[in-house]
Amino acid sequence: MHSGNATLAGLLARDGSPYDVAAAKVLVAGVVAAAPAALEGDWMALFAPTPSPELRLALQQLAAELAAAPMPASPGPGERLALLRAELARRGMHGFLVPRADEHQGEYVPLCAQRLAWLTGFTGSAGLAVVLPEAAAVFVDGRYTLQAQAEVDADLYVRCHLTEQPASEWIARTLRPGEVLAYDPRLHTIGEVERYRAAAETAGGSLAPLPDNPLDAVWVGRPPLPLGPVAPHERRFAGLGAEEKRQMIAERLAAEGVDATVLTAPDSIAWLLNIRGTDVPHTPLALAFAILDRDGGVELFIDRRKLLPGLAEHLGNRVRAVPPASFGAALQRLAGAHRRVQLDPVSAPAWVFDQLVGAELRRAGDPCQLPKACKNITELDGTRRAHRRDGAALTRFLAWLDEAGAGDLGEIAASDRLEQFRREGEHFRDLSFPTISGAGANGAIVHYRASPQTERQLAPGTLYLVDSGAQYLDGTTDVTRTVAIGTPSAEMRDRFTRVLKGHIALAACRFPLGTTGSQLDALARRALWDVGLDYDHGTGHGVGSYLAVHEGPQRISKLPNTQPLLPGMIVSDEPGYYKTGAYGIRIENLVAVTPLGAGEGRERELLEFEVLTLAPIDRTLVEPALLDDAEIAWLDAYHARVFAEIAPLVDTATRRWLEAATQPLGA
Amino acid sequence: MHSGNATLAGLLARDGSPYDVAAAKVLVAGVVAAAPAALEGDWMALFAPTPSPELRLALQQLAAELAAAPMPASPGPGERLALLRAELARRGMHGFLVPRADEHQGEYVPLCAQRLAWLTGFTGSAGLAVVLPEAAAVFVDGRYTLQAQAEVDADLYVRCHLTEQPASEWIARTLRPGEVLAYDPRLHTIGEVERYRAAAETAGGSLAPLPDNPLDAVWVGRPPLPLGPVAPHERRFAGLGAEEKRQMIAERLAAEGVDATVLTAPDSIAWLLNIRGTDVPHTPLALAFAILDRDGGVELFIDRRKLLPGLAEHLGNRVRAVPPASFGAALQRLAGAHRRVQLDPVSAPAWVFDQLVGAELRRAGDPCQLPKACKNITELDGTRRAHRRDGAALTRFLAWLDEAGAGDLGEIAASDRLEQFRREGEHFRDLSFPTISGAGANGAIVHYRASPQTERQLAPGTLYLVDSGAQYLDGTTDVTRTVAIGTPSAEMRDRFTRVLKGHIALAACRFPLGTTGSQLDALARRALWDVGLDYDHGTGHGVGSYLAVHEGPQRISKLPNTQPLLPGMIVSDEPGYYKTGAYGIRIENLVAVTPLGAGEGRERELLEFEVLTLAPIDRTLVEPALLDDAEIAWLDAYHARVFAEIAPLVDTATRRWLEAATQPLGA
Repeated sequence: MHSGNATLAGLLARDGSPYDVAAAKVLVAGVVAAAPAALEGDWMALFAPTPSPELRLALQQLAAELAAAPMPASPGPGERLALLRAELARRGMHGFLVPRADEHQGEYVPLCAQRLAWLTGFTGSAGLAVVLPEAAAVFVDGRYTLQAQAEVDADLYVRCHLTEQPASEWIARTLRPGEVLAYDPRLHTIGEVERYRAAAETAGGSLAPLPDNPLDAVWVGRPPLPLGPVAPHERRFAGLGAEEKRQMIAERLAAEGVDATVLTAPDSIAWLLNIRGTDVPHTPLALAFAILDRDGGVELFIDRRKLLPGLAEHLGNRVRAVPPASFGAALQRLAGAHRRVQLDPVSAPAWVFDQLVGAELRRAGDPCQLPKACKNITELDGTRRAHRRDGAALTRFLAWLDEAGAGDLGEIAASDRLEQFRREGEHFRDLSFPTISGAGANGAIVHYRASPQTERQLAPGTLYLVDSGAQYLDGTTDVTRTVAIGTPSAEMRDRFTRVLKGHIALAACRFPLGTTGSQLDALARRALWDVGLDYDHGTGHGVGSYLAVHEGPQRISKLPNTQPLLPGMIVSDEPGYYKTGAYGIRIENLVAVTPLGAGEGRERELLEFEVLTLAPIDRTLVEPALLDDAEIAWLDAYHARVFAEIAPLVDTATRRWLEAATQPLGA
Repeated sequence: MHSGNATLAGLLARDGSPYDVAAAKVLVAGVVAAAPAALEGDWMALFAPTPSPELRLALQQLAAELAAAPMPASPGPGERLALLRAELARRGMHGFLVPRADEHQGEYVPLCAQRLAWLTGFTGSAGLAVVLPEAAAVFVDGRYTLQAQAEVDADLYVRCHLTEQPASEWIARTLRPGEVLAYDPRLHTIGEVERYRAAAETAGGSLAPLPDNPLDAVWVGRPPLPLGPVAPHERRFAGLGAEEKRQMIAERLAAEGVDATVLTAPDSIAWLLNIRGTDVPHTPLALAFAILDRDGGVELFIDRRKLLPGLAEHLGNRVRAVPPASFGAALQRLAGAHRRVQLDPVSAPAWVFDQLVGAELRRAGDPCQLPKACKNITELDGTRRAHRRDGAALTRFLAWLDEAGAGDLGEIAASDRLEQFRREGEHFRDLSFPTISGAGANGAIVHYRASPQTERQLAPGTLYLVDSGAQYLDGTTDVTRTVAIGTPSAEMRDRFTRVLKGHIALAACRFPLGTTGSQLDALARRALWDVGLDYDHGTGHGVGSYLAVHEGPQRISKLPNTQPLLPGMIVSDEPGYYKTGAYGIRIENLVAVTPLGAGEGRERELLEFEVLTLAPIDRTLVEPALLDDAEIAWLDAYHARVFAEIAPLVDTATRRWLEAATQPLGA
C-alpha cells in the first residue's frame, strides 16, 4: 500500500470536506452499493462542494477498488440456512419469514435488502421463504415457477406456488404446537401479519415480531445500505413546485380532518418533494420515509450524506431532513399526541402501525399516488419529447439491425447497441429496466433476460423481440417491437397481425369517464380469442414521469381493478402472443389518457388515448387481409406520424430506411 | 249470510279433507296471499285428494270473496311512523332498521314481507329505511331516486342515495349517544349488522337485535304468509333427479369436511329438490329453508299445508318436511353437536349465524348456486323449446302490432295482447316479470311499468320498447324488442344500429374458459362510447330454468365480478340507449354459454354464446352503412334462423309478415 490514505486525507481537508478518510470510505462504499447510475452522475459533489480534480481522481480510484473488490466468500445455501436456524434458536424462536419485499414494499429492492436471494438463491421479483426447524419452503407465483426450480435447492426447500399452495396453509400444516414463528415487522404489511398469525395459531403456535432481523445478523458480506446521490428534480420537468404539491396534499388531508400522513413509498416521496435518487437500479428513487403534516411541513427520514449540494435549499425550510433512525420516535410522538394519522394499509409496514398505537388511524390510500399518476401538462410535454428522442434511438437501432441482418448477431450485442443509441439522447440517465432481448424461442419467455449462457443468435426465419426503455429527465419510456429476421412464416404473420389488431383496438378506443382498465382489457385480446389464443400477462401498466416504469393505481388487466382511467395517466398497451419453444410477439406503445374535448351529441365525457411511443411496427409481419379498413387507416396514420416526427432526428441513411418502413400498407 | 259455512263443512268432510271450516278459510287466505298464478293451478287439491265439483265451487267462491274483500283501512304514512316509534319506545328502543329484504335476501318478496313499502310507501326492489326518534331516512339506489321522490313523504323521511350517502354514515351522524338502534336479525346479513353496529357505536349508541319485528306488531291489515301450492318439477324438465342432486352436493360437502349446509335461498331449494311453488309473483319459488346433511338427507322447513298431493312421495323419505317454526331448534342442534356447518355469509341472515354459535362455521357460497346456474342438457333442450314457443308468440304480437299499426293502441292494451299470445303456448305458467311496455318517452324509463295514469299511445314517428318474458315448465324467457312506429328519424336509426352493433359484438364473441362477464361488458358498449353515449344498466344477467329470471352468480356488467362464465350458463345480452323524454332502445336476447369444441391450432379452451331467443329485430331501424360485413352476416344469419324455426309455428299471415321481416339486409 502506498500513501493513498494520507493523500486522500489531505485532499478532503483541502477541499473543505466534512469527512475524514474513514467516513469518506464508508460513503464511497454506499455509493458503490447503490445503482450503477449513481457512479455516472456527479456523486463526488457529496464529498466537497467543489471537489478538485485531484480529489475526484482519488475518489474515483477508491470507488473502482471497492467495486472490483472480490465478494467475501459466502457459505453455501445449506450453511446459510443452518446459520439462520442457529441464530433463531439463540433467540428462542423456531421459525422465520423471509419475504422478497423490503420496508418500502416496492418492486425495486437494494442489494442489502435482497434477503430472499441471499438465503435461498431465488432472484425473482416476488416471493417468500418460510424457515422452520425441520422444514423450509419457498413460495413463488406462476411467472417464477421454472426459475425457482432452477435457483432453489430442492434438498433444502419445498418449492410452492404462491396462490395454489399458500404459505399460510403450509404454516398451519407444518408449524408444531408451541412453536414461535418470528417475523421482521418492517418487511410485512398488516394484512400479511394477520394472515400468518392466523396460520400459526391454527397450528397451535404463535407469531412474534423481532426488533431486528436475525438473517441480517448471519449474512456474511451483506452489502452496505445504498447511498446514491439525491438531486432536485427540476420544476421545468416536474411542472409543479414541491411546495405547491405539499400544500395541495396537505389541504386535502386537513379537509378530511387528518393531522398527518406517513409516506413509506419512495416514489411518492420523490414525486412530492421533486427529488430523484439512485439507490436502486433503473428507477430514480431515494430510499426514505416521510411524514407530511396538515400544514404542509415534511419530516424526511433520509441519510443526509446522500443529499447533493443545493438539495437542502431545494427542499426549503418546511422540509426537515432527519436521520432515518429518528423515524420511530417521530411516529411515537404522533401517537403520544393522539393525532389523526392517515396510513395506507396496503403499502405501509406493520412496524409503522406498531409505532402508531395511540394515534387515531385513518386507513386510506397513499395520497400522493393518484396525483402522481395523473401527469400535468409539463410532464406530458416532457414525455412527448422523451418519446421522440427514444423513438429516434429505437429507429436507428431497427435500421441498423436491418442492415446487420442475419449475420452472427447475438441478443446481448443487439441490446448493447440499442443502449448505446439511447445513451446519445439528451437527458438520458439510465435504462428504465433491464432490456428483454429475445431471439427465437427466447422471445417466448415473458421475463427473459439474456445471459452468455442463454443467448441466441438472431437467425433467419425467426422473430426477434426487444422490450426496452429509458429514464430521461423529462420522461420514462417503455416500448416493445417484434422484428422478422429474414422471411417470417404465415403463422408468424397471422399471430403478429392478431396481436396488432388487439393493440389497435385498445389504442383507438374511446370510453366514458369512470371506465377502468379492467373493462378495456378484452379489446386487446379479442382477435386472439377468436382463434383460441391468449397471453398470460396484463395488457397495460401505469408508467411514471422520470420515476418507476411500473406504477399504480391504474392497470389494464383481466384482474378486477376499480381505479378509473383519468386524464394524464400514462399506461402501456402491450398485447402479445408466445409460442413456447418457437417465438414470442409483443407490440407495446405507451399511451396517455386524454379528454376528447367537446363534440356534438355527446352525452358522456369521453376519454381516449394519445399514443406517445414513436417507432415503426414491422410491416413485413402484417397480414393485410386480416385487418379491416379502420385498422389499416390507424396503422398508416401512425406510421405517417412516426416518419414526420422521427425523420428530422435521424441521419440520412436511417431516414431512408424509416421512409420505407413507414409506407402505407397498400403501398 | 246463508249456510255457506255449513255447506263447506259438509263438503270438506265428505271429500276426506283434513281441514275444518276455520282451518280451510285460513288456507284459502294463504293461497290468495300468494302469487296470482297460485289460483290458476290446481290449488284445490290442497284441501282434499280429489275434491268434488261441489267442493271446488265452494272453495272458488271463498277465494273470490277473500280476493275481493276490501283492504282494512290503513293509517296514513305519518301515523304508521308514529305507531312504529311508539312500539319501539314501549320496548325501550330508540330506532329501527327497515330493509326491503325478507329473510331470504332475494329479489322477490311476498306481500306480508313488504315492510318498507307499507311503512314508507316506497315500492322499489331495493332500499332501506332507518327510523330514529326525531328523524327518519330512506336510502335507495340511482335507479329509484325519482321513484322515491314520488312515493316517499319528504316531511317524514330524508331521501338519500344508497351509495353516495350511505345509511351507516347517516346513522353515525344522527343517532345520539346512549340510544339503541334495533334490528330484526332475520332480515339482515352479518355484513350489514357489522356495518350498522360500527355506525351506531361511532355515534356513541348501540345496535340491538329484537326477537320479533316491532313493525309487524303495528302493521294493520298485514297480509297472511303466502301458502302457494308446491308441485314437483318433473325430471323430464329438470334433467337430474333430486336424489342425484342431493347426493352430488352432499358428496362435495363431505369431501370438504363439512357436516351440513344451511340453505336460505328458496331458488336453491327449488333447484335441489326439484320443486316449484307460487309464493311470490312471476318466480316459481316456494318460501322455505333447508338443511342438507353430508349424507344427502334434507330437513325442509316449509308449511306443509302448501304441499300438493304427491309431493311427499316426490321428495322421498330422505327429505323430511317439517314446520318452519322448528328451524331455530334444528340449527341449535347442529351448534350443540359442534358440527361443521357451511353457510353463505352473503345471503344467510344474521339470525341463522346467531343460532349456530357453537358450531364450527365454514363461510362459503351457497353450494347449489353454481350447479343451478350451469344448465344440463335437458334444461338446455327445454329452454330451446320454450324459446321457440316464446318466439312464436312474440312474432305473432309483432305482426299484429304492424297490422294494428299507429291506430289508437296504448301500452297496456299492447302488453295484454302479447300476454294473450304467450298464454296460448304449451307449458306456459306465468309471465317471468311484469312486462315493460313503453311507448315514446316512456321507453326511456328503464324500469317503466305502464299504468292507466302514465300510459301513452303508440304514435307514428316514435319507438315502442317491449321487454317481456314468460315462465314455461321447460324454461324461463326474457326478451326485449324495440319497434319503429311509422317512420323513424335518422337519429333513432343511428342509435338503434349502435345498440345492435354492441348486441352483436357480445353475441358473436369467443372467449377462453376463465373469462368473466365483467371482461366482456365493454364489447357491448363500444359503438355507443365511440360517439359519447352509454347506458346506465348492466349488459347481462343470469336466467334460471323455470326459476328466477335474475339469478347469479354470473353477470355481464361494468362492476367487477370474479365468476367465470361456464358452459350451460344462460345470460341476457341487452345493451340499450335511452334519450330522456324522447325514446328508449334495448335489444335483448338470451344466450347460453357453449364450448366451441375442438379446432385446429387452438391453445385455449374456447367458449361462445348460443343465441336462444328467436324473434325478428326491426330492420327498418337498422342503418346498414354503420355495420361491417361481419355484423351484416350475423344479422342475416340470425334472421334466417328465426324464419326457419318460427315460421312452422305460426299462421299464414304471420308467416308472410315474418318472411318480410327476416329478409337479408341487402334485400
